[in-house]
Amino acid sequence: MIKNITEYETVSLDEERGALAIIDQTKLPGAFEIIYLTKQEDIHRAIRSLQVRGAPAIGVAAAIGLYLAALEIDSDDYDVFYGRLKAASSYLATSRPTAVNLFWALGRMEGAARRNSALPVSRIVELLRAEAIAIHDEDIGVCRAIGEHGLSLIKDGDGILTHCNAGQLATVRYGTALAPVYLGRMKGFNFRVFTCETRPLLQGARLSSLEMSSIGADTTLICDSMASQVMKNGWVQAIFVGCDRLAANGDACNKIGTSGLAIIAKHYDVPFYVCAPTSTIDMTARSAEDIVIEERPPEEITEMWFKERMAPEGIKAYNPAFDCADADLITAVITERGIVRPPLGRNLAALFSQ
Amino acid sequence: MIKNITEYETVSLDEERGALAIIDQTKLPGAFEIIYLTKQEDIHRAIRSLQVRGAPAIGVAAAIGLYLAALEIDSDDYDVFYGRLKAASSYLATSRPTAVNLFWALGRMEGAARRNSALPVSRIVELLRAEAIAIHDEDIGVCRAIGEHGLSLIKDGDGILTHCNAGQLATVRYGTALAPVYLGRMKGFNFRVFTCETRPLLQGARLSSLEMSSIGADTTLICDSMASQVMKNGWVQAIFVGCDRLAANGDACNKIGTSGLAIIAKHYDVPFYVCAPTSTIDMTARSAEDIVIEERPPEEITEMWFKERMAPEGIKAYNPAFDCADADLITAVITERGIVRPPLGRNLAALFSQ
Repeated sequence: MIKNITEYETVSLDEERGALAIIDQTKLPGAFEIIYLTKQEDIHRAIRSLQVRGAPAIGVAAAIGLYLAALEIDSDDYDVFYGRLKAASSYLATSRPTAVNLFWALGRMEGAARRNSALPVSRIVELLRAEAIAIHDEDIGVCRAIGEHGLSLIKDGDGILTHCNAGQLATVRYGTALAPVYLGRMKGFNFRVFTCETRPLLQGARLSSLEMSSIGADTTLICDSMASQVMKNGWVQAIFVGCDRLAANGDACNKIGTSGLAIIAKHYDVPFYVCAPTSTIDMTARSAEDIVIEERPPEEITEMWFKERMAPEGIKAYNPAFDCADADLITAVITERGIVRPPLGRNLAALFSQ
Repeated sequence: MIKNITEYETVSLDEERGALAIIDQTKLPGAFEIIYLTKQEDIHRAIRSLQVRGAPAIGVAAAIGLYLAALEIDSDDYDVFYGRLKAASSYLATSRPTAVNLFWALGRMEGAARRNSALPVSRIVELLRAEAIAIHDEDIGVCRAIGEHGLSLIKDGDGILTHCNAGQLATVRYGTALAPVYLGRMKGFNFRVFTCETRPLLQGARLSSLEMSSIGADTTLICDSMASQVMKNGWVQAIFVGCDRLAANGDACNKIGTSGLAIIAKHYDVPFYVCAPTSTIDMTARSAEDIVIEERPPEEITEMWFKERMAPEGIKAYNPAFDCADADLITAVITERGIVRPPLGRNLAALFSQ
């Protein structure tokens, strides 16, 4: 039994080992293991296989991964160096398609190299280390700020419902959607937290339930299909979800089930909040239609942990990893820079023009 | 691999063995086993543990079970006989609380005894056998009629979405919600069927997917949380669900997730049909508020098949087995006597006053 997982960072640079250190999330809640990755193939696989997942955590892992790639490039020539860095970045970018933080973090790292192309390569590598650490450190501050803004929307005793995992395990610390609960707990607030289990991979059952019970929150696990009944019972005062990519018009792409949850919340008049660091907002995507939705293997649905068959042999399964809540279903988007209210299109544009 | 499960009846009286014969649904889809039950405790447990499930099938199983109980009563005195029959009926009635067919079938059996109290007990037992067989046989005709009515609402090539299992395994044959698909297939129609897996016990993955692929329907399994995305894709022309108890105002109590599915269907303007034999309609329940919702053990959610832990130790889980779709979300109720359109309250009353 893990007593307090909040003592650990989800993803970090281990400089002694020269490795990306991550909590292996595929082992939770049964076992708590930190793994250390140095090879690009292993980092790619860790993202692809969800050993590290959650849009912000993926971004941080990719940044650290690209710094480790830079360390391995054996050339003093900038053009050779940058070509290889770019190749490594392109490779890491193929690990998952939907969460924009992956591309945002890799782009930021590439930019740090390009901006300093006049410097010696050894110095550029140092700056890439600093950039990766900055992306890591900023994530903590961003999540705290989202938590403070979110906390202003709820009160002690409220029922909070969340889907998938956008707690600390989806970020470096605190999480996005669950940051208000972490910060509220520090102030002595009690919330009644409902975690949707989140089929097929059960991030809600395995990760969010663990996080919430780890900080002593009153936690109740439900199946995804039970959210309507829980809202009908009057138990939910606010829904907080994370986000993998938010389009310029406010459409929010997040774990599969989010669109249905937003529709049901509107029916019961329950506020539906999307927590999104600005790194998750993709102003080049006009709406959900511009976002690629990852489809994952059908065996995630038809077999439990790829061990036991739960559906007839040969049955087809459709397994989109994400869906998008339409902007008009969203009560507010909570970013580190503040709460964005409808009309989301106009107010997101204003946020980015500040 | 089971080639054609439509050759078997879900529940029947095996007179040679003097037993209730059921397909053990907890073993599907891995194994196909027919089990033979004679003891009241075993029949009670079979209903409780979902070896036989689905409102109509539960009713038939209870009727046959009560006939087997009558066979064992060793008294020629009507009052003694009826007292023991009533005790056996009360015991079977405690096996599950929500599906009204259980109480309807037991009540019908008791009524057959009471109406014939002047006859010798041995003759009453014969009449109880006839009544149980009538309940069994009528179920087949009722489901066929629901199928014909339902089929009039769809056309060849349509996408059909269903939740939980209301196919043949929920009845004696044909099912309720899936009866239109069975009958359509017999006429050579092709449908694209989406089966929601139906957490926690996966009746959709295990049973509906098996039934639909068994009759050669184009079947795609999805997680419950994916229904919204599938509707958004424009793949669904009609939703058919079964029902465990329909209140006089049209509120439809059915497998957990039904209320959310109905809300989402309304959002996307997809017709939402509830298939309910008149034996499932409880005119004494004014609305959903008068219906007891069964809560089942949390381990159904936290452990897969009670074997592997999927959530942290000690986590609470809320596990209502059913919820109710509000009447105003239902496009029509399909009974064996015809299609009932809104206003459901008035038109259901008219149906029962015919």
